[in-house]
Amino acid sequence: MTQSWLDNGKRSVVALTFDVDAETGVLSMGEAYAEHAMTMTHQAFGPDVGVPRILGILQELEVPATFYFPGWVAERRPGLVERVAEAGHEIAHHSYSHVPASSMTADEERRDFERALQVFKDIGVPVYGHRAGLWEASWRTASLVAEYGLLYDSSMMNDDRPYRVPTDKGEIVELPPHWSLDDWEQYAFLPAPQIGTVMENPLNVLSMWKHELDAMRRHQCLFMLTNHPFLTGRPGRAEALRSLIEYGKSCGDVDFLSCRQVAERARGDEALASRPLMKPDTEQGLFPAS
Amino acid sequence: MTQSWLDNGKRSVVALTFDVDAETGVLSMGEAYAEHAMTMTHQAFGPDVGVPRILGILQELEVPATFYFPGWVAERRPGLVERVAEAGHEIAHHSYSHVPASSMTADEERRDFERALQVFKDIGVPVYGHRAGLWEASWRTASLVAEYGLLYDSSMMNDDRPYRVPTDKGEIVELPPHWSLDDWEQYAFLPAPQIGTVMENPLNVLSMWKHELDAMRRHQCLFMLTNHPFLTGRPGRAEALRSLIEYGKSCGDVDFLSCRQVAERARGDEALASRPLMKPDTEQGLFPAS
Amino acid sequence: MTQSWLDNGKRSVVALTFDVDAETGVLSMGEAYAEHAMTMTHQAFGPDVGVPRILGILQELEVPATFYFPGWVAERRPGLVERVAEAGHEIAHHSYSHVPASSMTADEERRDFERALQVFKDIGVPVYGHRAGLWEASWRTASLVAEYGLLYDSSMMNDDRPYRVPTDKGEIVELPPHWSLDDWEQYAFLPAPQIGTVMENPLNVLSMWKHELDAMRRHQCLFMLTNHPFLTGRPGRAEALRSLIEYGKSCGDVDFLSCRQVAERARGDEALASRPLMKPDTEQGLFPAS
Amino acid sequence: MTQSWLDNGKRSVVALTFDVDAETGVLSMGEAYAEHAMTMTHQAFGPDVGVPRILGILQELEVPATFYFPGWVAERRPGLVERVAEAGHEIAHHSYSHVPASSMTADEERRDFERALQVFKDIGVPVYGHRAGLWEASWRTASLVAEYGLLYDSSMMNDDRPYRVPTDKGEIVELPPHWSLDDWEQYAFLPAPQIGTVMENPLNVLSMWKHELDAMRRHQCLFMLTNHPFLTGRPGRAEALRSLIEYGKSCGDVDFLSCRQVAERARGDEALASRPLMKPDTEQGLFPAS
Repeated sequence: MTQSWLDNGKRSVVALTFDVDAETGVLSMGEAYAEHAMTMTHQAFGPDVGVPRILGILQELEVPATFYFPGWVAERRPGLVERVAEAGHEIAHHSYSHVPASSMTADEERRDFERALQVFKDIGVPVYGHRAGLWEASWRTASLVAEYGLLYDSSMMNDDRPYRVPTDKGEIVELPPHWSLDDWEQYAFLPAPQIGTVMENPLNVLSMWKHELDAMRRHQCLFMLTNHPFLTGRPGRAEALRSLIEYGKSCGDVDFLSCRQVAERARGDEALASRPLMKPDTEQGLFPAS
Repeated sequence: MTQSWLDNGKRSVVALTFDVDAETGVLSMGEAYAEHAMTMTHQAFGPDVGVPRILGILQELEVPATFYFPGWVAERRPGLVERVAEAGHEIAHHSYSHVPASSMTADEERRDFERALQVFKDIGVPVYGHRAGLWEASWRTASLVAEYGLLYDSSMMNDDRPYRVPTDKGEIVELPPHWSLDDWEQYAFLPAPQIGTVMENPLNVLSMWKHELDAMRRHQCLFMLTNHPFLTGRPGRAEALRSLIEYGKSCGDVDFLSCRQVAERARGDEALASRPLMKPDTEQGLFPAS
Repeated sequence: MTQSWLDNGKRSVVALTFDVDAETGVLSMGEAYAEHAMTMTHQAFGPDVGVPRILGILQELEVPATFYFPGWVAERRPGLVERVAEAGHEIAHHSYSHVPASSMTADEERRDFERALQVFKDIGVPVYGHRAGLWEASWRTASLVAEYGLLYDSSMMNDDRPYRVPTDKGEIVELPPHWSLDDWEQYAFLPAPQIGTVMENPLNVLSMWKHELDAMRRHQCLFMLTNHPFLTGRPGRAEALRSLIEYGKSCGDVDFLSCRQVAERARGDEALASRPLMKPDTEQGLFPAS
Repeated sequence: MTQSWLDNGKRSVVALTFDVDAETGVLSMGEAYAEHAMTMTHQAFGPDVGVPRILGILQELEVPATFYFPGWVAERRPGLVERVAEAGHEIAHHSYSHVPASSMTADEERRDFERALQVFKDIGVPVYGHRAGLWEASWRTASLVAEYGLLYDSSMMNDDRPYRVPTDKGEIVELPPHWSLDDWEQYAFLPAPQIGTVMENPLNVLSMWKHELDAMRRHQCLFMLTNHPFLTGRPGRAEALRSLIEYGKSCGDVDFLSCRQVAERARGDEALASRPLMKPDTEQGLFPAS
């Protein structure tokens, strides 16, 4: 059976994704930040105020989204994952602790991966895809995703269309994100840990993302938007997101899909590239050690 | 008695706040910066030139504001606090030294807190609320605020409406600020200490803050603006602030209140959330030590 | 024979250049980044997706360009250099490893320089010019460029018109680039290595570069644009580049040339400045050691 | 004799100043940067290409300016200071080495100060004012300026109008600059030393500075613009500067003066503030040592 990831007559797909990192977004940079009360409340805003606000906007605009939860966050906010799922959105695996897999041993990564799976199993929501904390996957991650029967990963940046990844445990689909469609480097600012510089005007971010969507419609790409409720849950940013979605809907040639829907379409699309993921072979002494 | 923090027919409240940090904004990062004459004069601009200019604008526009003073600054500029209070504005407690409470022991935080209270007592102005230096409160801060009989704190970021905080010394009101409504990361720039990157165009900041106010009117939030006279006292920024206030007044559905006024309304509003403040429980070894 | 680098009736020359750094752009900052899968795929986007997209735009607009390849990248993507050359563009020498020459010994720099020359020789494409990795040439670089018979270098920033550089191995032409016409500090963002801050809106970059081109037309300068396919290959940025080229063509007084063409014209233009490149003589103890 | 620093009917004074730091702007951060050929040529652009371009614009618009030279730069470009002076502009003292005075001992600062004076004496141009390298004056600097008979300093930031500074060697005038009217944090970018982040669009900088001038006209301030030829000498920025000057001239209520002219007017204006410069008295242990 052959099919296309892009429906007949459509020119782009928008996948709205929300990484509900909450406190793990900072704790994964150092446990000591737990002492920073303002920082912790800054992160708690995400699940506690941002998520309900974003759910409201998605409901008003009738578009689906995918919410990536670290297992730790799902555990500490009982009922939150269920509430998002009941609103009709997809729940996805965003590690347990949000600690970068690229900094873990193989065993540590596996344990963290399994622990998050168990959290979702205990809650009783199915998960179909994975995204590494900070997108910092290891070279082993795709194989883990395949081994545990998930359909897709969304951490790698070597394309702007879905592609297939062969692994020793079978093939998965990669749904590539990119920093330029992330609210992190546009909006994040904290003194400890020191994050961000200037916080961008949401109207400028809206202009940039509308331009990107237009360009992706021209080039038939996947508009993989990654937002964080602790950032985009703020009113001015949430309203900019609303305007972006309204713009996408008005184009007429854009599909709004969950990641699972994109991955299922992509799995059967033989025209998509197959890109194995391999660590570059670096000659001894060619590059500096630091 | 039940009441609403938001008056009938209003959609948002603007609380204009000015943190008069002066030299403490930098000295709290290291005593050695006292040797940097340019840096010290850069900070002195706040109380010496910025505050009178801002007072003039507030008087012309007939809006109230709240000025947060570190005790150290109040001591070193005799008559300044009185001058601000006589202009009809609220004076609030902004620690003694501006050193982050999150870096202090419990004893140090209490001594710093008490010392500032004594300064305001000696001057003879009542204070009703507190804001931690750099908003870097500790998990003990809310309890101290309650213990010393203050009505509110304004340092935590887990909401964008007032909320109630239960503590072991009684309940206080939290009036949450946020980095996106602060002039610090928009305008601050110094080489030593190294602060800031690009200084934003005040016209862009005005655009962003008007957009935020519009969004907050839609979502019925508290527009808690935090400005620093050493930054916003500069002419182009002060005039952007004037335009923002004029815009808010023209909306017709926005109240301009002092923090005390907001807190008093919020104290009796049982529809507001009650959010205890607790350090997250972090499992040994889950997050990196650094 | 005397000639002018600027054709009769023209007011500026646009040299479109693309540095295809791929993984070397990051590995030259530390071999350990090879473990960062996301980072590596972020860089691989350049040759794998960005270059074909940019070639398409150049073909549609019928303008020539110069592609600078580190030898390492040319080796690891068999057929890529040939594909670019067959599309009618110039191939140029961008070191072997992209490690800054300013951090190498004389021997290391020579070996790296020769190794890249050998790669291009093996592929069978002629190269006429050189650009140091990160533009971080050493004071020896111009002499190496002359010794190996290349026509020009494009790394130095002390002019905005071509100039002639006398060396102990003969004269070369310098085609000066500048950070303000580079997409790197506008668009680059990575957490590890930590690169960049806010990613700029391509529409703002387009505005800035059109303004620069207008100013260069007024002052008769060389518009040396340096873009990286891993950055500008993204759709929104690629379309901004398309708009910039269209604008330049519509001016009527701008030539689009390869670097080799500019250098050949400049070689014969005796009105151009001759600027020897010499390390400043710094008195012992005058400047801090750090 | 009493007079006003602001002429009858005028609302602001524009003082255009250019700091010709050249290589010292970087060498003062570390002598080892002399090995970085690209960085050194990036700085050399200032005196070699930027200054002539800026002189041309000033001549076309018929406005005076003040050029601050480190003595080291004046020595190494024979004839440059004379050329600027012959074009009718003021030459001022910008230290010898551009090393921050705040990092020097009293003896080192005096020797550096005297050495620069000797350079200007040898060249035969009179100097009337001083600006510390990076504006990083020490608490001793104003006294040195008075002791050596100069009229004014331009390094301190505690006002936006001229003011008088009493010292143990007599009174001088301070002409305060500010980071927001400096091209450094708007445009500067280098990887080694690591300087700057995003380079701003000159059209945005023009918008910001026109807004600042309007606000300063409202508040009757001194518009002290500090530009660096290695930055603003680039075509797009130089043309933005041209537009700014044209705008200022079109206002009708703005004087364009050299720093010496402003200082001479200010010296006789008894309505101006007198601000002694004193290191803040910091209590032992109150602020962190770091």
